Amino acid sequence: MTTTQALLDSLIQHKAAINLASTEQKNQALAAMAEQLLDQTEPILAANALDMAQAQGKISPVMQDRLLLTAERIQAMADGIRALIALPDPVGLILEEVERPNGLLIHKRSTPFGLIGMIYESRPNVTSDAAALAIKSGNAVILRGGKEAFHSAQAIVKALKSGLHDAGLPEKVIELVQDTSRESAVELMTAKGKVDLLVPRGGAGLIQAVVQQATVPVIETGTGICHIYVDKDADLEKAVQILINAKTSRPSVCNAAEVLLVHQEIAKTYLSRLEQELDGKVELRADQASQALLSQSTPAGEQDFDTEFLDYILAVKVVSDVEEAVAHISQHSTGHSEAIVTENQAVAHDFCLHVDAAAVYVNASTRFTDGGEFGLGCELGISTQKMHARGPMGLREMTTYKYIITGNGQVR
Amino acid sequence: MTTTQALLDSLIQHKAAINLASTEQKNQALAAMAEQLLDQTEPILAANALDMAQAQGKISPVMQDRLLLTAERIQAMADGIRALIALPDPVGLILEEVERPNGLLIHKRSTPFGLIGMIYESRPNVTSDAAALAIKSGNAVILRGGKEAFHSAQAIVKALKSGLHDAGLPEKVIELVQDTSRESAVELMTAKGKVDLLVPRGGAGLIQAVVQQATVPVIETGTGICHIYVDKDADLEKAVQILINAKTSRPSVCNAAEVLLVHQEIAKTYLSRLEQELDGKVELRADQASQALLSQSTPAGEQDFDTEFLDYILAVKVVSDVEEAVAHISQHSTGHSEAIVTENQAVAHDFCLHVDAAAVYVNASTRFTDGGEFGLGCELGISTQKMHARGPMGLREMTTYKYIITGNGQVR
Repeated sequence: MTTTQALLDSLIQHKAAINLASTEQKNQALAAMAEQLLDQTEPILAANALDMAQAQGKISPVMQDRLLLTAERIQAMADGIRALIALPDPVGLILEEVERPNGLLIHKRSTPFGLIGMIYESRPNVTSDAAALAIKSGNAVILRGGKEAFHSAQAIVKALKSGLHDAGLPEKVIELVQDTSRESAVELMTAKGKVDLLVPRGGAGLIQAVVQQATVPVIETGTGICHIYVDKDADLEKAVQILINAKTSRPSVCNAAEVLLVHQEIAKTYLSRLEQELDGKVELRADQASQALLSQSTPAGEQDFDTEFLDYILAVKVVSDVEEAVAHISQHSTGHSEAIVTENQAVAHDFCLHVDAAAVYVNASTRFTDGGEFGLGCELGISTQKMHARGPMGLREMTTYKYIITGNGQVR
Repeated sequence: MTTTQALLDSLIQHKAAINLASTEQKNQALAAMAEQLLDQTEPILAANALDMAQAQGKISPVMQDRLLLTAERIQAMADGIRALIALPDPVGLILEEVERPNGLLIHKRSTPFGLIGMIYESRPNVTSDAAALAIKSGNAVILRGGKEAFHSAQAIVKALKSGLHDAGLPEKVIELVQDTSRESAVELMTAKGKVDLLVPRGGAGLIQAVVQQATVPVIETGTGICHIYVDKDADLEKAVQILINAKTSRPSVCNAAEVLLVHQEIAKTYLSRLEQELDGKVELRADQASQALLSQSTPAGEQDFDTEFLDYILAVKVVSDVEEAVAHISQHSTGHSEAIVTENQAVAHDFCLHVDAAAVYVNASTRFTDGGEFGLGCELGISTQKMHARGPMGLREMTTYKYIITGNGQVR
């Protein structure tokens, strides 16, 4: 038996303790986990220094920054855990209650999944976020982080386990896979009957690998080729501000805009105003029609309308009307977040009906697709599939339900 | 391009017509589909006769009966479609509405998946059931039935398409895969970005093949190793009636009981009463302890507690207490339906909390796990996974949702 299989079996043996824990027990555990993270700041920073040293020259500066921990970042992780305490417990809710004509009483009751798996990359805070969300939602969790962050993750998990122990819960409901080989990821993806839900978080390559190979239920997260369509009836000033925010406030995230579609009637005015405001900060990959209207642009290749740039690059296309915008989005969208800027309510309504995405915006930036911004209080990831959860996944999306049926001898 | 790929592309091109259809349009289509099924009874029976002739000597009498259509069975299919008309439209519901402090208005609105795929075996009524459920829930549907029922399915789909046409909807939102090779099933399972949800219905082999190979979101249905635990505080008469109903009322279905667990303190009395009532109709595969208490039984092999017999066979085991019953169920359950018979409410409560299954019964037969019996009005299948849908899947489980966010220029 591999060490990962042994961990899975141990989690299954111990998961009932967290699956059935009371709200109070879970909140006490979260408080203790946050406290232990802070108490163990030094060993966590030391472990992170080890990871950082190994990363030198191997990963890009951006990735190194993602990997880096500081006392402030550990404080932020602890604050994130504490924020969960105030949120309502998603477990044990009676979602429906019905009495059937034959006297059977049916309760539909929310329950934890049981054991959740996470496969992720180099951000150490994902380790504490995911573990804390799992605990609050009553789930045991198996974490498989990237090898770059292994020592950091190990030190973080050690602190979280101490917190569980302090709160009187078994430490063995949070586990970190000790082997960061490809094989250990495949073991999780195919742990059918053991892992109830698997959530990959990271780049498109990781997510596609999981979707291709998994036999356990998976929620696909994250890839966002988000469009902003500026309609002929747009308030152009709003449209400029929304585009700039959606593109430049944080280009590396999935809810950043990648494509601008602009109505032909206002394209000239809008693009020149936009160019002035962008001041050369964003490379514009323009289709033929928009190229003619821009003072500086790169000709867009076919690829550019299907690329998540995650950078200061924007694909630009002039469309003849909202129908063409919707058709373009249907063909190129990843189903994450799409926006229209228009003062015409009928056009906005039509756009919202026809565009098939997790979040459809009217006169607002796509950057709002986020658990916190939606009022969920937290987020495990942003689902781009339609099954189970769509858009930001909060605590509720980390639960399932069971039917409890009470009778007095009914037969069929 | 294969014919299946061409069908998928055509469905995607036409699906908006049904995804956005009004409740009235969808109900008119259902009424017309039912009428066309009845009008086309003769060609459907002729097509079925072709399938039956080809099946002679190749499939078992039970399977032949499943394949057989009669005028009455076509009438039942039409009645099934008509029953959907009265059910509430699951699409367009505002599931949540929230105004954020920044003024963003967020609506969570139920929407169809888009395109649903079904892979199934030889029961021709699945063709009309699945198509009608898809239409009512606003989904386009691609049906891939077994080769034994191909002519029947083709004739049924022809009638359903005529109904769509009569109601002014495009016929091309319901399609039958014309190629019943293994390859066409694999094409559906891997039609990522095209098929939004795939539901396999049939034997364990088919379902496992889909789960193993699919890259599109799948809901696993159907396998049921259902347990009845008779507690020491059971009303033994109820326990006898519940067991007999769960085992013998329809042994070939997934909600039939396969395993009896009986508390040691009442095992002798209960088993002798049960044996008397069963009158030799059911083969009892008994563990050592129960063997000693039964006048006629077969020694149970290890396999017998992990087998969905779908037959007049029952595995029997004596347990020392409810904890042992729960532990046995945890290890051997397929997460479908589990029952306890007891008059002790504390024990019943404990059983319901600890048993991890779609449906957990107190003093009632597992045979009630069914969309109709739960008051859903209909059923696409019974999910044995925890993601998205658990237990009977009705119209609501055939929808997803989108967030529609309305602002007036908000940026983040």
